[in-house]
Amino acid sequence: MPYQPGLHILAEFSVAAVTSLSASAPCKLFFDGLIAEYGLEKVGEVYHDFNGAGFTGVVCLTESHLSIHTWPEFNLATFDIFLSNYQKDNSEKVKAIYNRVLSFFEATEIKKTELVR
Amino acid sequence: MPYQPGLHILAEFSVAAVTSLSASAPCKLFFDGLIAEYGLEKVGEVYHDFNGAGFTGVVCLTESHLSIHTWPEFNLATFDIFLSNYQKDNSEKVKAIYNRVLSFFEATEIKKTELVR
Repeated sequence: MPYQPGLHILAEFSVAAVTSLSASAPCKLFFDGLIAEYGLEKVGEVYHDFNGAGFTGVVCLTESHLSIHTWPEFNLATFDIFLSNYQKDNSEKVKAIYNRVLSFFEATEIKKTELVR
Repeated sequence: MPYQPGLHILAEFSVAAVTSLSASAPCKLFFDGLIAEYGLEKVGEVYHDFNGAGFTGVVCLTESHLSIHTWPEFNLATFDIFLSNYQKDNSEKVKAIYNRVLSFFEATEIKKTELVR
């Protein structure tokens, strides 16, 4: 491959206290803070709440994207973060942000895949 | 895991004729057609064009999401599709849509990862 886009972490995690999986608003505030703190640039986003049955959120970044889908009825979420290395190596940021997300949700990692794209 | 969310395909592919990697509008039309044809439900989307230097697109679905990031200068794109099996098994749709995307871009697959989440 002529260019290696970057690191993509995909994870499934469980959350005991499901409040944080039920509505997107606190998650959006948290993601916005992370994006600012890590110097990323948001170019658009979608958050959609499923009537108390979880939410989905996708944030489009100049560096690629992050996404979350939650299933409070299963105490479960899937999370992705993919940052390209176009201007600099963002692999450490991907790992750091993933750990911050686990902390925010007080989550237990079920499965994590680190994919170098 | 109490619930298996579904199949996620992540791929890098190369495209010889870069026109299709340069601007998002034709891709958006194509994705909208696919979403209708496969009976998926879009809940939001972001398309962002990088001034002739490629584009990024993320479509949020009730079934999860799909995303594309393009680098025309490297004849390269990364594509993801993840459909949850919440109401029915969507694994075959994930594979079919991925193949349709390859055809649309007249792409050569460089690397494909099938991740059962």
